[in-house]
Amino acid sequence: MAVYAMTGGATGIGAAIKEQLRKGGHEVIVVDIKDADVIADLSNTEGRQKAIAGIRSACPAALDGFIACAGVATHVANKALIPAVNYFGTTELVDGLADLLASSKGAVLLVSSNSAPMSTDNDYVDLLLNNDEPAALSHVENIDGQAAYSGSKQAVARWMRRNVNRFAQQGVRINAIAPGYTQTPMTRAVEESEEYGQAIRDFMASIPVGRPGQPEDMANAAAYLLSDAASFVCGSVLFVDGGHDAMLRPDQF
Amino acid sequence: MAVYAMTGGATGIGAAIKEQLRKGGHEVIVVDIKDADVIADLSNTEGRQKAIAGIRSACPAALDGFIACAGVATHVANKALIPAVNYFGTTELVDGLADLLASSKGAVLLVSSNSAPMSTDNDYVDLLLNNDEPAALSHVENIDGQAAYSGSKQAVARWMRRNVNRFAQQGVRINAIAPGYTQTPMTRAVEESEEYGQAIRDFMASIPVGRPGQPEDMANAAAYLLSDAASFVCGSVLFVDGGHDAMLRPDQF
Repeated sequence: MAVYAMTGGATGIGAAIKEQLRKGGHEVIVVDIKDADVIADLSNTEGRQKAIAGIRSACPAALDGFIACAGVATHVANKALIPAVNYFGTTELVDGLADLLASSKGAVLLVSSNSAPMSTDNDYVDLLLNNDEPAALSHVENIDGQAAYSGSKQAVARWMRRNVNRFAQQGVRINAIAPGYTQTPMTRAVEESEEYGQAIRDFMASIPVGRPGQPEDMANAAAYLLSDAASFVCGSVLFVDGGHDAMLRPDQF
Repeated sequence: MAVYAMTGGATGIGAAIKEQLRKGGHEVIVVDIKDADVIADLSNTEGRQKAIAGIRSACPAALDGFIACAGVATHVANKALIPAVNYFGTTELVDGLADLLASSKGAVLLVSSNSAPMSTDNDYVDLLLNNDEPAALSHVENIDGQAAYSGSKQAVARWMRRNVNRFAQQGVRINAIAPGYTQTPMTRAVEESEEYGQAIRDFMASIPVGRPGQPEDMANAAAYLLSDAASFVCGSVLFVDGGHDAMLRPDQF
């Protein structure tokens, strides 16, 4: 039995990952804003440090894996939450747990997005990668939710890849999934929104495999990447998107 | 029990994939130049059509999956074999089996390489993607084996991604693994060669996870991507390389 910690395990992709790991006989400590083992708000550094402390207190000796699932979608009223939770709520937690993960040669799974390569706001992504939280949070006031979201997810993937060697030298493997459209409470809110609903439905109709993703698809990918079967997979971004990224960006990978 | 066909199942990565699928209770029809169910030379169209006919004759009704593993490494004396086997030995077979795969909603797995993004010979890759076999085979006479190899593997990944929608519309999922340095009979020959040996050993020492890949690592990735657990993974290139691609190309994915 392994001990995992994760953020955002209450609903959607996170809940499916949690259930699949628990079904596999593993212990999962869940951090979320409510309905969780550790209650913490990942939108600010106090909440993130509270999350780290809560995980450390639940498993002081070692941690076999960490999954950063907490995420805010494009439709949120306060757009600053998007980089605050999606990017800083990921990177600050992984850094804060690195020594604990190192002591069990653990595996980390991040959640990027198949929209990540579509971000063209390099200034925003650079602010994130430079760890300038105040500037990144004010930058998003002047861009739309989709740009704030895709940029946050591009930065997550690039942060992971830039740091892969640092973690690997401590024996910690780190990978990301890049989900495509997945039916969860988070995406249903967007699907029903006046602003993005039609665009999302058109997008969904264009998925090559002919169906939207389900949380279980993402949980299956997570389970593989976190397992010993994937012990040579490191720094990889696995697109789980029904063929959308390949269709939109055929000559890059 | 599913019925799979594969090329290059006699040694190395292919043999490990074959063994893992058979251990899972599946039937695997192997095409190779020797020691196989179907003996065929994939370096020319006659041999490829012989391979397709052999697979069709072994499983006339349907095919649950196809794995294109046959590959020629950088050190081969006749460099024309590199694009002939690695690229045309993949694409001609997938196209020739597409209807059979469609009738079982099958899955295809291709073998690219983590050297694929390093290819800078766009003329060569374009000749491959334009299906101009005579020109591609004469082009490699003037480039080195590494360039011939990485270009052939970049073309495999881009061909897959360009055709993902065509296959998906027939119900056929197609994905690729991009192995990093993997210890197989093919790579041992390169490792021992005077021309590339030292470079390969230096390269191996720089793998972030601290070990070279083993054929089983690739078989594990193949088993996941071919399984129903990956039914929403389509058009993806999964790097299985111990972190090398992330280290060398941190800002792209």
